[in-house]
Amino acid sequence: MRMVRFSDSTGYTRRGEWTDDGIVANERTYNPDEVDVLPPTDPTKIVCQAGGYTDHREESGFEERPERPELFLKTPNCVVGHGDTIELPPGRDVVEFEAEFGIVIGEQCRSVPEADAMDVVAGFTCVNDISNRDDQERERNWVRGKAFDASLPMGPVVAAPDEVPADATLTLRLNGETKQETTRERMIFSVPELVADVTELITLEPGDVIATGTPFGPDRLSDGDTVEVEFDGVGSLKNHVIAR
Amino acid sequence: MRMVRFSDSTGYTRRGEWTDDGIVANERTYNPDEVDVLPPTDPTKIVCQAGGYTDHREESGFEERPERPELFLKTPNCVVGHGDTIELPPGRDVVEFEAEFGIVIGEQCRSVPEADAMDVVAGFTCVNDISNRDDQERERNWVRGKAFDASLPMGPVVAAPDEVPADATLTLRLNGETKQETTRERMIFSVPELVADVTELITLEPGDVIATGTPFGPDRLSDGDTVEVEFDGVGSLKNHVIAR
Repeated sequence: MRMVRFSDSTGYTRRGEWTDDGIVANERTYNPDEVDVLPPTDPTKIVCQAGGYTDHREESGFEERPERPELFLKTPNCVVGHGDTIELPPGRDVVEFEAEFGIVIGEQCRSVPEADAMDVVAGFTCVNDISNRDDQERERNWVRGKAFDASLPMGPVVAAPDEVPADATLTLRLNGETKQETTRERMIFSVPELVADVTELITLEPGDVIATGTPFGPDRLSDGDTVEVEFDGVGSLKNHVIAR
Repeated sequence: MRMVRFSDSTGYTRRGEWTDDGIVANERTYNPDEVDVLPPTDPTKIVCQAGGYTDHREESGFEERPERPELFLKTPNCVVGHGDTIELPPGRDVVEFEAEFGIVIGEQCRSVPEADAMDVVAGFTCVNDISNRDDQERERNWVRGKAFDASLPMGPVVAAPDEVPADATLTLRLNGETKQETTRERMIFSVPELVADVTELITLEPGDVIATGTPFGPDRLSDGDTVEVEFDGVGSLKNHVIAR
């Protein structure tokens, strides 16, 4: 099951299943190109991991395996959907993509043991953790650098865990060229480890997202780019970039 | 006007005015001690300033005046109201209070010029930026250290800007003893400067809060404490502390 939220031609928000034949909702089949695909959830918060893959940690000069996940936050103003425009923050020089896969939470939870973690996971989605390096490098906490408007494209669907193979590939393409590629198997912390860690002190709500970190190769976005994050089983999250 | 949200004896959520005679809502007057006072808003995010007063910056070893406000984030799971219990995060040693006043946003806004900032401010409230130093000291971004559950008591009201004098006093009392005291005049950045800075890249929503930083004197909370933040014109935000 790959759940999608979309706005139909009347502007009504519907939930449906994204199948090979199109989006099926309320006994009707919609052409995905003819509806406005919305972010698959409205998270109250997005808890992100920095350096979730060994290769990006080496690139960034971190030690190999951290004691626990390194976390930072994004906020609801960051969220945009598949097909939406990423407006680059004005006056900034280096704004980069970061392909990630997101864990979507299905129920309110706190202090979840690793063994029960998959019970609170609704599924997985693609996220693009757009990062404004100009500010990030100057900040103790990454707020202007990570939580600016439209800095978290997410979607197109929430795929149930059984849709996503254990060795699923995560790919980022910039204007059609592959720039990042890795598999779930290369993650430092597993999904249950991340859920257990985040919920130790923080209650997660249905629709909240844990963004699991990016592999090697974040690079710069420019006006006119098309950026696409693809994750096996979820599909492709595509966004157009503009500068104002 | 001092706006309060509360749950009446039927459990219905009401909005009223906190007056000297009690809480007035829908032509009735309620005794504040006999209703459940709720957080005055449901923020989608809380943007916090670190080191907003010169004295606390000296105490923490920062330079005197930063180039711009240093920001970090709290999330909706942090918010509790006046009279609610602060449950200390389990297994942590040093958890401290930080008295602050909060700017409550009245309308959706982005890129607000300083000159227009007061147009988007609904009013002010008291906040207590509860901080878990055990984790904060280990984190690049303060997530476990600052965004844990119940780490942002706020209220009891949103007081319109004209209720709060320019030299309003902010006081924190722990079990009746004054531990922090300062005035608005000692803030490094003004309210319009903070609103303009935060909204440069981040859209704020109605009910969102900018927590303006704490003065000299954060100190430790323990099981059984009563902690009270008072700000002239807003009133007193009182919470009981328990450890589990």
